[in-house]
Amino acid sequence: MTTQTRTTAAVPAPTPDEIASMDAWWRANNFLTIGQIYLQDNALLRRPLVPDDIKPRLLGHWGTSPGLSFVYTHMSRVIRHTGQETIYLTGPGHGGPALVAAGYLEGTYSEIYPKVTADAEGVRRLFRQFSSPGGIPSHVSVTTPGSIHEGGELGYVLVHAFGAVMDNPDLLALAVVGDGEAETGPLEGSWKGISFLNPRRDGAVLPILHLNGYKIAGPTVLGRKDPAEVRSLLGGHGYDVLEVEGDDVPGMHERFAQTLATAYDRIREIQQEARADGWTLGERPRWPLIVLRTPKGWTGPVEVDGIPVTGSWRSHQVPLSGVKENPEHLAVLETWLRSYRPEELFDESGRPTELVLQANPAGDLRMSASPHANGGRLTTELDLPDFRDYARDVPSPASVREESTRAIGELMRELYVRNPTTFRLFSPDETNSNRVGAVFDVSDRMTAERVLEQDEKLSHEGRVMEVLSEHSCHGWLEGYTLTGRHGLFATYEAFAMVSASMTVQHSKWLQEANKLEWRAKVPSLNILLTSTAWRNDHNGFSHQGPGLIQTVLNARGEVARIYLPPDANCLLSVADHCFRSKNYVNLVVIDKQPQPQWLTMDEAIAHCAAGAGIWDWAGTDDGDRDPDVVLACAGDVVTMEVVAAAQILRKRLPQLRVRVVNVVDLMTLPRARSHPHGMDDVRFGELFTDHVDVVFAFHGYHGAIHQLVHGRPDADRFHVRGFSEEGTTTTPFDMVVRNGVDRYSLVMDAINNAGRQVRGSSELKTWCEAKLARHHAYIVEHLEDMPEVRDWVMTTVVED
Amino acid sequence: MTTQTRTTAAVPAPTPDEIASMDAWWRANNFLTIGQIYLQDNALLRRPLVPDDIKPRLLGHWGTSPGLSFVYTHMSRVIRHTGQETIYLTGPGHGGPALVAAGYLEGTYSEIYPKVTADAEGVRRLFRQFSSPGGIPSHVSVTTPGSIHEGGELGYVLVHAFGAVMDNPDLLALAVVGDGEAETGPLEGSWKGISFLNPRRDGAVLPILHLNGYKIAGPTVLGRKDPAEVRSLLGGHGYDVLEVEGDDVPGMHERFAQTLATAYDRIREIQQEARADGWTLGERPRWPLIVLRTPKGWTGPVEVDGIPVTGSWRSHQVPLSGVKENPEHLAVLETWLRSYRPEELFDESGRPTELVLQANPAGDLRMSASPHANGGRLTTELDLPDFRDYARDVPSPASVREESTRAIGELMRELYVRNPTTFRLFSPDETNSNRVGAVFDVSDRMTAERVLEQDEKLSHEGRVMEVLSEHSCHGWLEGYTLTGRHGLFATYEAFAMVSASMTVQHSKWLQEANKLEWRAKVPSLNILLTSTAWRNDHNGFSHQGPGLIQTVLNARGEVARIYLPPDANCLLSVADHCFRSKNYVNLVVIDKQPQPQWLTMDEAIAHCAAGAGIWDWAGTDDGDRDPDVVLACAGDVVTMEVVAAAQILRKRLPQLRVRVVNVVDLMTLPRARSHPHGMDDVRFGELFTDHVDVVFAFHGYHGAIHQLVHGRPDADRFHVRGFSEEGTTTTPFDMVVRNGVDRYSLVMDAINNAGRQVRGSSELKTWCEAKLARHHAYIVEHLEDMPEVRDWVMTTVVED
Repeated sequence: MTTQTRTTAAVPAPTPDEIASMDAWWRANNFLTIGQIYLQDNALLRRPLVPDDIKPRLLGHWGTSPGLSFVYTHMSRVIRHTGQETIYLTGPGHGGPALVAAGYLEGTYSEIYPKVTADAEGVRRLFRQFSSPGGIPSHVSVTTPGSIHEGGELGYVLVHAFGAVMDNPDLLALAVVGDGEAETGPLEGSWKGISFLNPRRDGAVLPILHLNGYKIAGPTVLGRKDPAEVRSLLGGHGYDVLEVEGDDVPGMHERFAQTLATAYDRIREIQQEARADGWTLGERPRWPLIVLRTPKGWTGPVEVDGIPVTGSWRSHQVPLSGVKENPEHLAVLETWLRSYRPEELFDESGRPTELVLQANPAGDLRMSASPHANGGRLTTELDLPDFRDYARDVPSPASVREESTRAIGELMRELYVRNPTTFRLFSPDETNSNRVGAVFDVSDRMTAERVLEQDEKLSHEGRVMEVLSEHSCHGWLEGYTLTGRHGLFATYEAFAMVSASMTVQHSKWLQEANKLEWRAKVPSLNILLTSTAWRNDHNGFSHQGPGLIQTVLNARGEVARIYLPPDANCLLSVADHCFRSKNYVNLVVIDKQPQPQWLTMDEAIAHCAAGAGIWDWAGTDDGDRDPDVVLACAGDVVTMEVVAAAQILRKRLPQLRVRVVNVVDLMTLPRARSHPHGMDDVRFGELFTDHVDVVFAFHGYHGAIHQLVHGRPDADRFHVRGFSEEGTTTTPFDMVVRNGVDRYSLVMDAINNAGRQVRGSSELKTWCEAKLARHHAYIVEHLEDMPEVRDWVMTTVVED
Repeated sequence: MTTQTRTTAAVPAPTPDEIASMDAWWRANNFLTIGQIYLQDNALLRRPLVPDDIKPRLLGHWGTSPGLSFVYTHMSRVIRHTGQETIYLTGPGHGGPALVAAGYLEGTYSEIYPKVTADAEGVRRLFRQFSSPGGIPSHVSVTTPGSIHEGGELGYVLVHAFGAVMDNPDLLALAVVGDGEAETGPLEGSWKGISFLNPRRDGAVLPILHLNGYKIAGPTVLGRKDPAEVRSLLGGHGYDVLEVEGDDVPGMHERFAQTLATAYDRIREIQQEARADGWTLGERPRWPLIVLRTPKGWTGPVEVDGIPVTGSWRSHQVPLSGVKENPEHLAVLETWLRSYRPEELFDESGRPTELVLQANPAGDLRMSASPHANGGRLTTELDLPDFRDYARDVPSPASVREESTRAIGELMRELYVRNPTTFRLFSPDETNSNRVGAVFDVSDRMTAERVLEQDEKLSHEGRVMEVLSEHSCHGWLEGYTLTGRHGLFATYEAFAMVSASMTVQHSKWLQEANKLEWRAKVPSLNILLTSTAWRNDHNGFSHQGPGLIQTVLNARGEVARIYLPPDANCLLSVADHCFRSKNYVNLVVIDKQPQPQWLTMDEAIAHCAAGAGIWDWAGTDDGDRDPDVVLACAGDVVTMEVVAAAQILRKRLPQLRVRVVNVVDLMTLPRARSHPHGMDDVRFGELFTDHVDVVFAFHGYHGAIHQLVHGRPDADRFHVRGFSEEGTTTTPFDMVVRNGVDRYSLVMDAINNAGRQVRGSSELKTWCEAKLARHHAYIVEHLEDMPEVRDWVMTTVVED
């Protein structure tokens, strides 16, 4: 490690003028925050408050807000001195009014929403729109300029912050962690982000743990702990802990300004040292973190009706209720609002005074205007190779078997090479296990902790992100894409449910973002599930669950896509599409175990473009007439079973006309009016006819297909077999048998649901039953015989 | 705080004989673990190994196992000296073979599974069944005696442990936390359990953080941290950190025995002090915690093919591959197995020798035999009051409005009184917010942290569990019920998705437990969602999501129940049923806001018993003929809209025969063969006919109803309106309008889908459109007019 340390231009101690300006900005913000919660008129208090000035319904959260705006204006001062590109992430997202007010005071709000003008009428509109029908949400939301983080569902502020600064060396993410949020598992699991940060090429996260002591209805764990324990805890996570406590003004301004300057200088020191020539990371830097202790509802009414409010959970939401009806409360509100001296803060026209405006940084340096928080503005298109270069040679269907996911691993290897600062793979320690380890040819796993000689593919320079936390992987990728970069989260299918709520919340974010023209589209959130329910036969029931498909299915069609490529070439085609897309959640499900390959690359491209198609070669459907039955499939393992069933039928009941349909893009199934990918009626009819029974083998829960084909002609004719929560540690073939999607059961299903009886049917059913009986006997007797299981692991296509 | 400290009978230092016996037990366990992974024959190595002795498929995880069994036998020694009731929770659940071997060496396994005898043939069977078709899963699972924790999906070992010891003063839960698991959010969020433990009335958790340094493919964060940082971190969580490191034997035995004794004595000291007369908790005790550092794969082959295995991630699963084909590897395996000197461990017959057996505690004190880990054996029935005592007086439908959830709050208040050690409520700081705060009349919130004078309903004696972590609440309740006690988890509907994966995993556990006669049934896991998607109009889109219904829907019918009571009396009836039930996940969804009450208690009881029924008073269906259309509903808010729609139709289009059907028990909708609650065809026909169109207003996503009614006669006639991911901060009425389930849209739906045209229909549709236009205008103009929103918040039944 180099010992040469370039010193930074330190942030100076604040001048009295600076403090006056910051304090004015803070007062203005508090005033605007309270106004948003309470006022529908008389916005700048140009006359005494009357009940009619009060909104008919009081909504919003005061308690956390003054702390949020206090931190905001102090960070603005640092930015003004340093030109530091900074985004502000609000863990306690319910402090929405403070962040809306910040954007307003910085002028960004009026730039984006011209109706909210920088004058008295604009203030009135700002107030009325807050938490109102036709207005804006109560939380920091997609509509809030400068935000990449809603903070409604708590727990993700640090993962978003760390994701945002990866490969973003010039960015500082200031992340306020509320002490309520700090109780959640995902948040507690995310302090360790610094163990994955490289100060040379990554930016910095400055966490501000804001301890105001209370949640909605009681104290917080960290708020009640001995400060020494809190220091010990955060120090144990690897931080250099700085602390500020109090409610005295201007003392708090002086002390916090000093502490923030210290923290910022420390960050710059770490970075400058790391960015000096010849540097290699030795010990993980001790990044600074500030613990800020202020009373909840700071500057609000100390007591209401003789009961303490400030410094208690009672200030969490609307500290004064019944203001319209209760003259005393109305008077308290007026006194409270006037305590900020609005006459100093807004001029005649209602525009913030120079005193206030001086506190703002300029242009894109305003945190509410940061292009990093509108990542689409900074997105560079991913430099993608021609995915056809990774094509698998498939001379004929099922003539080769491959671990299909290796193909996307090879594709991503090239993505790492071509996009050295804008693409990352995130996975809970499963990159190799998921057979996408080709990326390790060109990048290591990242760690900022010690690297030992015996370690493989692990370094401080690595950019493959492995941490055994689905929350961290998911959240880092969210932060990475929301700031305009590209990536993929690969995980076990069952454990994707761990972060299912994050998938839901991100879908909601994208859905709302689509409605705002000023939000440029960001790269999609790509999720690859590649140790699937069906092939966790070795790990057992807890690892067997296709739940995330069902979760994504209920997101809105504009933002959610589900792909079930049956082989490597289809996976490549799908992956190319996903990597090029914007503002989607793309869910791709394909197993990592060796599996038959069906289509040539050209066939795969055509098949994936259509989203679903007839596999002529698999069925006995001559195309001239309707088939007797359709065997449909979506998902790799069930596709193999369907092809095998069709092959049995072809050989043993050739007079039965069987059509095989494979579905890659699940969202082609619903009607076009239900999803943008939905097939039109003609196309649907071409595949499924409008009356022939369909036996549908599905990767996930059967109900998903029922819900998707609802409204299609005679939807009752769809007989779906899927994962029915039957599993254990067993053979892969036993997994499909247990859930009734094995080839023999499908043959019997096809015969039972065919439109006509064909001679030989009952004999074939008997043959199938014998096959299943043999299987069950095998399972029962296995402990005695222990036969080679290979034949039972994954027979490709049974015969000829 | 009393200063009187009764000293415990300290656990003595281990004698050489004790160490010899523990070491033998440990060697036997390691031998059996490896045997389970590798051997199908020659189980006790009575002859040289040959390829045929090797299993055809090698599965299982070696790396963590020797550490698990090492801890196990040492805890057994403490138990033998102290008689301490103890359960062992295996965070790294993939160490299944070690725990199976422990149960076998303790004799429990043969008691439960008589085929697995205590002789050579039994050992052979033990080996063959492991990870084999027809055998047992590879993880610590439901089949493993002594387990309440599978540890497949990582993160929950500490929440299960803390839940198990609540109100269980005599129980010690030893919880091994793997350093892989320690990276997950839920685990990091669960160290704080001690902040909620009262040493007088609760038992103790002894966490063993087992740092072997590696996950599947790389190092762990805690494994690479400076030990001082790890101490600081855990000390910050409030623990007294003890450390043991090494791989030397017998040195490790001596040091770990000493450390475990110290930890145990410290626990007893804390408890005895707390249980002395006149005690009140002062500072939260510093509970002991042990950091155990041993090489991954300890005692396994140091190198294979010249590459390090022990002490690296390569020992995670099967460290020696290709043993059947590779004679060198076969020889390594034989040497490895013989290094445990099996001849000292098993006698002629194959039974463990006395040397090994001496290490076992006796009877129920064996951890594999603890009745606490088979909680149904200890379950006392909940003492329930007559729920009718809490009935709401409902003179006629919708004549009163109530916050329905207050009723279940009052019921639970009595549960707290009558069941002072066997019932708890768990909630993320939302007990009051969810209107179940009546419990605070009789119990406080629990904290072991400082209590201040200004605090309300907060004390060290409280038994209402509030922590802002869905993972902790869910997991604590799981641990509490799996050890035989009763409870309820109340949370916001949208944020129930945070712990959806836990709901899935617990369902799987119960499903498997149902198959094992020796597992006595445990109280159900009751989940109450009472700040619902529809009524988070004030909090906005991130708080609006009914996803958990969809997740629970896909669990197996034997273990999953979903109730949507429309009012307080129905909620009481449902709650009584849920609290009495065993081995279910009961999901109950009802909002907390004031809402119309529909049924008298007698009506509610009958309605809930049937699960679904016709509301004659709401419709115009005369019962003699089929109705023209059925208006169905499931869920409180949509029920109100359906009743209002029916009322509009009754008044304005009386000649249309409209039937109103309300569904409380969602699982009555599928066919009887799909779910035990499924209505038979006759009953279904009585409600829905077999051909009349049904407009179904549903609380959740519409697809759920489509999947449930699939297979019912002419299922296509069900037109479902549900939550379609449209939301923001707005009025409750706007929420239903946005999602198309408002009364006016339903009236138009009913007309459009009625079996016959009725004069006046088009006029009524025009009227409805005008109503909606008025609403939309209201929303658009709201920011100008700011009318009183009360009328729009929740009109009960619009007219008459």
